[in-house]
This record gives sequence, C-alpha cells and structure tokens, in this order.
Amino acid sequence: MKKRIGVILSGCGVKDGSEIHEAVLTLLAIDQQDAEAVCLAPDMDLNEINHLTGAETGAKRNVLVESARIARGKIRNIREVKAADLDAIIFPGGFGAAKNLCNFAAKGAAATVQPEVARLLREMAAARKPICAICIAPALVAATLGKEYGPKLTIGSEPGTAQAINATGSKHLDCPVTEIVVDKEHKIVTTPAYMLAERISETAAGIDKAVRATIGLI
Amino acid sequence: MKKRIGVILSGCGVKDGSEIHEAVLTLLAIDQQDAEAVCLAPDMDLNEINHLTGAETGAKRNVLVESARIARGKIRNIREVKAADLDAIIFPGGFGAAKNLCNFAAKGAAATVQPEVARLLREMAAARKPICAICIAPALVAATLGKEYGPKLTIGSEPGTAQAINATGSKHLDCPVTEIVVDKEHKIVTTPAYMLAERISETAAGIDKAVRATIGLI
Repeated sequence: MKKRIGVILSGCGVKDGSEIHEAVLTLLAIDQQDAEAVCLAPDMDLNEINHLTGAETGAKRNVLVESARIARGKIRNIREVKAADLDAIIFPGGFGAAKNLCNFAAKGAAATVQPEVARLLREMAAARKPICAICIAPALVAATLGKEYGPKLTIGSEPGTAQAINATGSKHLDCPVTEIVVDKEHKIVTTPAYMLAERISETAAGIDKAVRATIGLI
Repeated sequence: MKKRIGVILSGCGVKDGSEIHEAVLTLLAIDQQDAEAVCLAPDMDLNEINHLTGAETGAKRNVLVESARIARGKIRNIREVKAADLDAIIFPGGFGAAKNLCNFAAKGAAATVQPEVARLLREMAAARKPICAICIAPALVAATLGKEYGPKLTIGSEPGTAQAINATGSKHLDCPVTEIVVDKEHKIVTTPAYMLAERISETAAGIDKAVRATIGLI
C-alpha cells in the first residue's frame, strides 16, 4: 500500500493562499516517490487579493473551495482527517500559510493557529510522524510546536522572520534555496523555496529533496 | 540572451481556466531549459466553477487577473504582445483553453477563437515560430489554423474530440500520455497530459518532452 502524505493547502495563489508552484511541485515529488498525496484544507474564509495588482479586493473566498483548484477537486476538509490516516504531512508555502492557517504574518511569535491545523500538527508530532514545511510554512510549525518541542527549522535567511521563529522556542538555521534542514529528533523537514528562490527550478530542487527526506523519515 | 517562450493562460483551475499542474510544469520545463517564460492572458471574463462541487456559481472572474495567480503576478495582457517579441508559444490545457480562449467546448469544429489569441497564433504560424499545445489546447490550435495549414496534432485518444479536430482540417493522431506529436513542417508540438494522465508524473513527463521539442524547433 502506498504511503499517504497529507498536503495541507491554504487557498490558491501566493498572495492570499498556497503558493501554486510550491503546491504543484510538492504533489509531483510525492507521486514521483510513488506515494499518495491526500490534499486537505480548512473550511474557512480568506481575504481575496488581486494577483495582477497586489491589492486587497475586500471580497472573501473559501480556503477549501479555492484549494480544490490545485487539487483538481480531490480534497478533503482537514476536520475529517486524523494523524492515524496519514504517514506524513507537508505544508507548501504562500501567504495563506501565514495568514489563513495561522496569523504569523500579523502576530509573529504570538501567532495563533487555525484549530484543526493545530490539532493535526500536534497529533502528527505526538505520533512521531514526519512533518515537512516549505517557504514561510515553517513559521506555522514553529507557532504550533515551538514551545513544546523546540524544533530546528529554516525559512531561508530572512533575519526578521528568523528572529520571530526563534521567539517561539524553535531554532532557526540559515539554509540555501536548493537545500533542506532536517530535524531528525522531531522528524521535521524544511526548505526555503520562494523565500529565496528566483527561479522555479530552484524551488523544484529544494522541494524534491524535502519530500524525499520526509518520506525517508516514515 | 534567453529564448522567450510565451505561455498563454486562460484562468486558474482546470474547470474554468488553465489546468494548474500543466501550467506549472510548463513553467518548470521552460526554466530547466534555461529559457524565459513570458506569461500572457486575455483581459476577459470567465464563468466561475466551484472546484470542490463542480457546480457553476453564476459569478464571473477575470481571466488575466486569475491567471496572474499562476504567474505570481508577472503576466502581460496578450493584446500587448506580438510574435516578434517571442521565440515560441505554449498553451497549457484546462477547460479554459476550450471555453475562454475559444468556444470549442460548445461548438466543436465550428469554434470561434478569442481575437487576440487568434491574432498571435496566426502571427506565430506565419513567422514559422514553434507552437506547443497541451491537453485540450490543441483543439484551439486546430480551430485557428486547421483550414489554412492542416496541422498534425493530438489530444490523446478521445474519439469525439479527435473527430471534431479532423473536421477543422487538422489531422488527429493518437498518442500515449507520456509522448508527443511533432508536426515538423508547421512546427507544432502537442501532448495529451490530463486528457489521458492518471498521475501528475505522467503529465510532467509528456510536458517536459513537449517543451524540449518546442525549444528545439526554434
């Protein structure tokens, strides 16, 4: 039976949801490892941003419904899924990871996390199942698990964000764009992707390594 | 100087726009060939479909604005771009290619094509610059260029669609999911992708070959 990898999406688009390239490259790397992606998202609103102009439109969209675009309709409400259903979980980046799945973008180390996302993250950590976070998504992992576990992780090399991550009790390590940080003790894998990448092929290289390492920790 | 490859998007989501995986894998393959992707889309409305339920919502979205999600904001109105600005063009699939960029989904061989898309396609063909079309997008190329050029192309092996393509004056050839059809005379490259693919890695393999062949024809 294939290993089941939860991919937690936060919408569809870098500015108000999941970073689309990172999400697709994650799904590709999972399939190339002959594992099965199980796309998940919370049923909640997001604040729509026009990706052509960068402006907030004032309208809401639904995170689960928009994430279904990336998942080609094959997605489940995260509320229905437990750690026992999965062998590992992966969070692609995009501002949705820091604005929808938690409020790190506004609150930094004092961030609160969407309850079902926090619940699944805590279940996975307690079960010692691997957790992978890409781009800005390690901030979400830090905000949820920092105090209890103090994991080592990276968002690349942005000093302000690194400082906020350290303030959660986690330990930030600098990391080049095509590399990964593996906290073997806590089975947490992170890679900078578009926090640093200037080309999609750089993002692809880091995500491919991160997904392989995550599946290797199962 | 890098070769400039126009990537014509039709929205953001398989059911009402560009198929997201195909679009991202196209951008990846272009960058891995050290060429430059130039994302383009028409400024026009699309009929929004809820990708979780598959239902039409009755609302409109804008093709250029939604396509900007895939392009991370770096996209141009197709109206501003001429064949002289590009070395090749590529159309990812998704229903948007058959519903927004033309009306093949409703009209078959009698389809009309969005005017700026038709203009750029005709300019590229007249300049003998390569054209690549993925998934259902070959129907758009057939509807625009079939009568004048009679190109050989594939959408995989779906008999009804193949028949409609033949009725445009084009010649449909069956093709397996990870392979491509190259019409060397007209410099037109096609691959089935999600017309046949059951896995993203199959789509990736076909698109990688198609993009390499397209760039090789420049």
